[in-house]
Amino acid sequence: MSERVITSLTNDTVKAVRALNMRKEREITGEFLAEGLKFIGEALDQGRAPKMLLVGMEARPHPLLDRAKAETLKAGGEIVVVTHPILEKISRRENPQTVLGVFEQAYTPLQAIKPESAPAWVALEQVRDPGNLGTIIRTADAAGCGGVILIGDCVDPFSVEAVRATMGSVFAVAIARCTPAEFLAWRETWPGSVVGTRLDATVDHRRADYARPSLILMGNEQAGLTDALAAACDVNVKIPMRGRADSLNLAIATGVMVYAVTDDL
Amino acid sequence: MSERVITSLTNDTVKAVRALNMRKEREITGEFLAEGLKFIGEALDQGRAPKMLLVGMEARPHPLLDRAKAETLKAGGEIVVVTHPILEKISRRENPQTVLGVFEQAYTPLQAIKPESAPAWVALEQVRDPGNLGTIIRTADAAGCGGVILIGDCVDPFSVEAVRATMGSVFAVAIARCTPAEFLAWRETWPGSVVGTRLDATVDHRRADYARPSLILMGNEQAGLTDALAAACDVNVKIPMRGRADSLNLAIATGVMVYAVTDDL
Repeated sequence: MSERVITSLTNDTVKAVRALNMRKEREITGEFLAEGLKFIGEALDQGRAPKMLLVGMEARPHPLLDRAKAETLKAGGEIVVVTHPILEKISRRENPQTVLGVFEQAYTPLQAIKPESAPAWVALEQVRDPGNLGTIIRTADAAGCGGVILIGDCVDPFSVEAVRATMGSVFAVAIARCTPAEFLAWRETWPGSVVGTRLDATVDHRRADYARPSLILMGNEQAGLTDALAAACDVNVKIPMRGRADSLNLAIATGVMVYAVTDDL
Repeated sequence: MSERVITSLTNDTVKAVRALNMRKEREITGEFLAEGLKFIGEALDQGRAPKMLLVGMEARPHPLLDRAKAETLKAGGEIVVVTHPILEKISRRENPQTVLGVFEQAYTPLQAIKPESAPAWVALEQVRDPGNLGTIIRTADAAGCGGVILIGDCVDPFSVEAVRATMGSVFAVAIARCTPAEFLAWRETWPGSVVGTRLDATVDHRRADYARPSLILMGNEQAGLTDALAAACDVNVKIPMRGRADSLNLAIATGVMVYAVTDDL
């Protein structure tokens, strides 16, 4: 089995992989980093082998590691064995994972989404926090949603922080992105309910009729859903605020919504 | 109005306030830090004036700031005007809030909790992540829960990170803490349903009978609810996992639970 060994911190491959921590570099290469054997396993289960598998010299033998190596090579990818300082440099953490994968970003084109393949989908407008986005991708997966559509200027779902928060679900659900105009045109073809969530809506989120498949729209952390997108929804609903808090965290609100909607379907 | 001015970074008051970033110091003093005028306003609305109000020299006039000053003095507290570098030192951030408050921690004794005062309550066993805990306190408040009971070795709800994530709800709901043994004894007196949430439970979280007031038990991020606490519940329920993800983030799971339970009550 061909494995390249790298020990120099200034090696070009090390620099290139480390650069994937930057959004600009991810956009140029169309690649992203996933850390840890659990994540690699999730990817393999979805038929997604890494383009490059980085393995620390101190990595312990593990059946899943053997599988990852075999599938990486089979898919034409490369295995690179690196030192602990290189892992630290790439992950920018003191206790890095000993196995990392470089994967191709896989955006699903809006037109390739099959609404009926899942009871619900999530669309996010201008989401700002990578932890929120990653947690929402994980939650959408858990609830059985088909995927997450990013509208407008959103954080990168393939940032290290977002990927980490997905706990591997980044490989399991469709991720699409579009402009507000593209979304509004595409929304016209949606076969089920398009449901906006707004604090100023009057319909309780448990009292609306949700036609399968439901497309749940959530707005930005600060400003909520814009008027333009809210107006394009079949119904806008609110999650009741019964105490002093005047809003929920975006990921929590999305979690409450996706379970409320999918339990009804 | 008496306002003390501090300009020295090595002033003892500055050191004492900054030390509240450490859990040990918070435990000794029984105090905690809340940053920002929004938080101070939430506290005042709950009748909780700061023991010390720290105001940056560059703080702009604001009616809420005037109110905060007046209520601080009325409650016997102190107003301290500080420089920008002092705010940075205390908050350990480059862009600190210009108003900070030092508050007394207010734990509610378990025996002082009135279960019937709210439709639901949340109990957390060994919660580990301060962001999760703060978000759960915010979510419990939003859903109309009475408060959050911390069982066993939990993170500090009065850490700066947890307080920040509460978005002010730390002042709005009861927070109690106890050992597992204390909880088990107290639970015997609970007038409604005690509901555990476990991934290995067989009852769907929407299909259980919840008697008001419901006490919702959530386990630790890694291990879930321990057998001892799960056995003490009237019913254990699970949130369905329909995709690849094998669990939800703890704060998301708690949000789904509190809204599922309170919508039924």
